[in-house]
Amino acid sequence: MREIGIGLAGFGTVGAGVFLNVEKNRALLRERTGCDFVVRQVAVRDLAKKRAAALPSGCATDQWRALLDNPAIAVIVELMGGIDEPLELVREAIKRGKIVVTGNKALLAEHGAEIFRLAAEKKVPVFYEAAVAGGIPIIKAVREAFVANHFQRIRGIINGTSNYILTRMAESGMDFASALAEAQAAGYAESDPTLDVNGWDAGHKAIILASLAYGFWVPGRDVLVEGIEKISPEDIRFAAQLGYTIKLLAFIDAGADGAVEVSVQPSLVPNGNILASVRGVFNAIALRGDVVGDALFYGRGAGQDPTASSVIGDLADAALALESPRASCGFIPHTLYGKLRPAADVVSPFYLRLGVDDRPGVLARIAGLLGEAGIGISSVIQPETEDGKKAALVLMIHDAPRGRMLSALERIRALDCVHDEPALYRVEAAA
Amino acid sequence: MREIGIGLAGFGTVGAGVFLNVEKNRALLRERTGCDFVVRQVAVRDLAKKRAAALPSGCATDQWRALLDNPAIAVIVELMGGIDEPLELVREAIKRGKIVVTGNKALLAEHGAEIFRLAAEKKVPVFYEAAVAGGIPIIKAVREAFVANHFQRIRGIINGTSNYILTRMAESGMDFASALAEAQAAGYAESDPTLDVNGWDAGHKAIILASLAYGFWVPGRDVLVEGIEKISPEDIRFAAQLGYTIKLLAFIDAGADGAVEVSVQPSLVPNGNILASVRGVFNAIALRGDVVGDALFYGRGAGQDPTASSVIGDLADAALALESPRASCGFIPHTLYGKLRPAADVVSPFYLRLGVDDRPGVLARIAGLLGEAGIGISSVIQPETEDGKKAALVLMIHDAPRGRMLSALERIRALDCVHDEPALYRVEAAA
Repeated sequence: MREIGIGLAGFGTVGAGVFLNVEKNRALLRERTGCDFVVRQVAVRDLAKKRAAALPSGCATDQWRALLDNPAIAVIVELMGGIDEPLELVREAIKRGKIVVTGNKALLAEHGAEIFRLAAEKKVPVFYEAAVAGGIPIIKAVREAFVANHFQRIRGIINGTSNYILTRMAESGMDFASALAEAQAAGYAESDPTLDVNGWDAGHKAIILASLAYGFWVPGRDVLVEGIEKISPEDIRFAAQLGYTIKLLAFIDAGADGAVEVSVQPSLVPNGNILASVRGVFNAIALRGDVVGDALFYGRGAGQDPTASSVIGDLADAALALESPRASCGFIPHTLYGKLRPAADVVSPFYLRLGVDDRPGVLARIAGLLGEAGIGISSVIQPETEDGKKAALVLMIHDAPRGRMLSALERIRALDCVHDEPALYRVEAAA
Repeated sequence: MREIGIGLAGFGTVGAGVFLNVEKNRALLRERTGCDFVVRQVAVRDLAKKRAAALPSGCATDQWRALLDNPAIAVIVELMGGIDEPLELVREAIKRGKIVVTGNKALLAEHGAEIFRLAAEKKVPVFYEAAVAGGIPIIKAVREAFVANHFQRIRGIINGTSNYILTRMAESGMDFASALAEAQAAGYAESDPTLDVNGWDAGHKAIILASLAYGFWVPGRDVLVEGIEKISPEDIRFAAQLGYTIKLLAFIDAGADGAVEVSVQPSLVPNGNILASVRGVFNAIALRGDVVGDALFYGRGAGQDPTASSVIGDLADAALALESPRASCGFIPHTLYGKLRPAADVVSPFYLRLGVDDRPGVLARIAGLLGEAGIGISSVIQPETEDGKKAALVLMIHDAPRGRMLSALERIRALDCVHDEPALYRVEAAA
């Protein structure tokens, strides 16, 4: 039986999951692929560290460069974390003709253009199913199954930590800090949850997905990314009252002009939209293709085993690629799209909550400023206040370009009757 | 640019969809695959027939065998319908080394074992994404993306016509005949809807999916397949009252003993289960793998364009296979499973509705017979009747082997206080 020599860089949660599941399902993998997947070497930072899963004996090293020099390794699985060392590892692996499998979303989002240029030049495939939405095979679907389609839009709930926190906030009424603490206690948020709650974990995934769908490497610095830290229980309640659930959504939208919107924003999703019912740590990606129509993928977006499932799927593809060269090295640039739409130009409806004085004329002044900007209001909620002094004013705003909405909001905030930080969220369509 | 010569057998809805979409998205396909997909010949039954889409000029024939002799054709797309002629075409294509793409579920369900034995022998791939769940790439997911997984269970809503009819019955209260007529008027059911409503369209798909997931060709004659023709508005109402929605579900379950259940049955799905909310003509497949956990795919299960999307995805895989041989010819037999579990041995909860005399002692006699069979009742509904003579008695039954349940039901039907045809449906788990 053909052996596929694997070098595993990183033996954290996912790395150990790959090792354990390759062991566990070795017989199945042999029968299905005709190959024996053998982890020949594992690189870790600290050989002495205690681990939940025991390091495979005899093949551990604390020198990740050793994987590059090991002639028995044909595939490098990069699950180290960080960016600089993984970039060096991936670069060198490609140069030496070793196939790369990675789950490193930050690496690809920031250096994908360089990595895939090199991969194409050297004709060495780079696989990265585990980098987006854990166990959901969305990369394979977009790259292979839906190859016939122009993607008209993609929406994703692609950060399980944020979705868990928002689910708990919506279902129990707790605030962000309490829900985060609960997520950490349950093992759904890391001790440093920054990249999850500030939106950038989802941002990296959206950049990778959009780049693959549209064939140009999306510049991360121009992508609008907002997190969930500022979402208040009050906004979740108002949203519910209006028939919406607040979700951290990735938006990927192709325009007829060839420009593509890519953003990650907390958004009000109508409860009739299937994405509103994605609860807890689950991820979901809804896409619309010009041939296939609407499709949705749902599953676990993180965790040891689901992510390992995607890495092992990539290993099977790597085995195939080792046997015979492939046309695609993982990302195919093309010329039909190629421009990111500036966030300011994106048109959508909005939810706006303001803290205002509870006195006559306030709504008129705010509506007046919106009207001057050509921005229409579709509905208003102003709950009665107890003290009669300060009130919440919630406005549902018709389709407006984000830039114009933000300018109008600046003028509104300058009014002496408006207090506190306003909350402005995009509103998603019904389906 | 490399040209991929295609012979299209059949120019009905899907065949025309493949032709039209390959034309429409030619530039995109060129950029993504590096190949030019060219339909070189189209075989139809009747050249003179009027069609919605015009036959491509100069390449139409009414002799499908001509595709086999055409040296410019490397890939045969079989979308003829029927079984005997498609089988001959597919057999001959494989023998001549032409890759096959088919959407013919009846052909594969009945002759898959022979076709894939021949394909493996000749090392000629057969692709069939379009045969199961239209535009949803479930074949690729099961064969490639989830290769690391033992599939513990698969559930599918894989017949859009049935799901449309059941959705209309549930939402408007109409009966089966009216909902079928509406589906036909809307173009969601064919003039002869037999295979859709008797469950066998879903049955064929379940057989293909189970065969792929478990590596042995499931014998169709031993598969339990029930349709939706006998579902009454009354059962849909009782189900709703109990918190369930009736769906035509495909059940694929692997046991620890290596035996696999494959069946298609109308079933009560708890409303909290995401499958309960799949409405209209949409399809969905939920699967549970021992590595990936729970995943769900949702999309259009039929129609010209969604199905064409899957066929074109297969064409891209065919182009790759033409360039370099593949380990898999579309179906990989393996030895880890290999036995179909007899339907009588499958254990599940049940819903049972009986027509009974409305007099004291009836429930006791029925419960007695169930008790003697070791079958437990979890709840009872007996709505008050108007005439005081005949009543509906609805029993929710605890886990029981189907065979034992059917024997007990035979004894119950023999009681003089029991009238009418009983309704017995499997009850699905909460998630």
